[in-house]
Amino acid sequence: MSRNAGSDYFMTRKNLYERIRAKRSFLCVGLDTDVRKLPEGMQGREEPLFEFNRQIVDATAPYAVAFKPNLAFYEAHGARGVEQFEKTCRYIREKYPEILIIADAKRGDIGNTSEMYARTFFEGNGAGGWLADAVTLAPYMGRDTVEPFLKYEGRWAVILALTSNPSADDFETLRLEGGEALWQRVLKTASGWGTPDNTMFVVGATRAEMLAEVRKIVPDHFLLVPGVGAQGGSLEEVARYGMNAECGLLVNSSRGIIYASSGEDFAEAAASEARKMAEEMGGLL
Amino acid sequence: MSRNAGSDYFMTRKNLYERIRAKRSFLCVGLDTDVRKLPEGMQGREEPLFEFNRQIVDATAPYAVAFKPNLAFYEAHGARGVEQFEKTCRYIREKYPEILIIADAKRGDIGNTSEMYARTFFEGNGAGGWLADAVTLAPYMGRDTVEPFLKYEGRWAVILALTSNPSADDFETLRLEGGEALWQRVLKTASGWGTPDNTMFVVGATRAEMLAEVRKIVPDHFLLVPGVGAQGGSLEEVARYGMNAECGLLVNSSRGIIYASSGEDFAEAAASEARKMAEEMGGLL
Repeated sequence: MSRNAGSDYFMTRKNLYERIRAKRSFLCVGLDTDVRKLPEGMQGREEPLFEFNRQIVDATAPYAVAFKPNLAFYEAHGARGVEQFEKTCRYIREKYPEILIIADAKRGDIGNTSEMYARTFFEGNGAGGWLADAVTLAPYMGRDTVEPFLKYEGRWAVILALTSNPSADDFETLRLEGGEALWQRVLKTASGWGTPDNTMFVVGATRAEMLAEVRKIVPDHFLLVPGVGAQGGSLEEVARYGMNAECGLLVNSSRGIIYASSGEDFAEAAASEARKMAEEMGGLL
Repeated sequence: MSRNAGSDYFMTRKNLYERIRAKRSFLCVGLDTDVRKLPEGMQGREEPLFEFNRQIVDATAPYAVAFKPNLAFYEAHGARGVEQFEKTCRYIREKYPEILIIADAKRGDIGNTSEMYARTFFEGNGAGGWLADAVTLAPYMGRDTVEPFLKYEGRWAVILALTSNPSADDFETLRLEGGEALWQRVLKTASGWGTPDNTMFVVGATRAEMLAEVRKIVPDHFLLVPGVGAQGGSLEEVARYGMNAECGLLVNSSRGIIYASSGEDFAEAAASEARKMAEEMGGLL
């Protein structure tokens, strides 16, 4: 695996599984960095989001195979926030090249616009920023919105399928003519656009039993599973229903790790939470 | 109507209809500003996107009731691009307070994250940027993703319903149990989250005849209609099937206007295209 700050590196499915075996963890740490929740001492800093992330990344890197910054938290600070998102990605890529960076952006637009987003996240921009390995995408508008992201070797489209929020039932679980649910159709259709080597799906942990249904449709794909911890999902159930022969799971925890302590010991507290989760994961692998 | 750079202004449905009658236009100019398509002289500028937008905005403001910058084109330049998006919004708001600003962002995330996006777009950030009147949103994850945007008076959630891209048929037009299409269910369900005073829907012009079906479900809502021009939709058909007693339409044109000429006369050419569309609209009102 060759990775550097340019575009000539790869995080294939095989690489990812190797990292999971080596670390005995399939933990993704969500960097939903809300400036209002940072320890007081951090809030006055020049670049509080980046400073906080840097310490969280260093503290949790031994236990994580992926980091997932959510763009909303950076865009909330306009251009200066976006800069800190970029710096966070660059920091991870340079210091921990073996860790997957998932930009949680939930983008989705028509073809030429999606192409623009894909370039932004996967090729970076003039300022050298926005380099992620994977981007979360909303499927509503169909194939156009995803296809541009599938043209990059070793990069990933992470498509929303069955999410963990209460209103997922508004549309995702609706029954279509013929009986299948919308989320099942999304899995069937969208898994045909790419391959298990460039596509993952988001399936919430609060519906762990439904992971068995998911696996009937996409036995080989990696699943990004949020909702363990703060949202109430169980890691053991996620593994029971969702794990495949090459693990096939990235389980995300955000608030449960990064805000484990609101004091100056936030990084050690985050490390301790991440280690606990990784230990549980090691037992499940 | 009181509008300034703070948050104490309103663009209500009534205000919007008044502007449409006064200007005899329901034109939305899409600021999909792709640096590679700018006139050569602009490309070397310090802030090419903003400089181009400023001239386009000044040239087309007499004929437009809305501007719609698409975030993808700004994010493509990282933090510096986002800054130019912010400057564009601020410029429009200050110089043309009677024109609606629609941030075409197609966001959609779980509750606490959506709240963050809503604050960003509607309240702005420390740097005074990202002030829009309306944001486009993807409905896949349901009510959670939209609700935070409905808490602001005189601001708008613009929800994707039936889009104009080829792959809209992958999911949007699927039949549900009972016979209605997914996009119809989206209109029915999502129109119940807010009111015609804070919710609009995106319906593509390439499906003009379906606007009659749309109007059966949402007779009073404003519809944002892309796809006239470059994508092939007809303005006359959109008006025939989609217009209601208070117009109820914002018809967007992006490339057809802003790239009407690739030469130094791009602003005059844009003005001339926008005037043509507005004249046709005046006849249809």
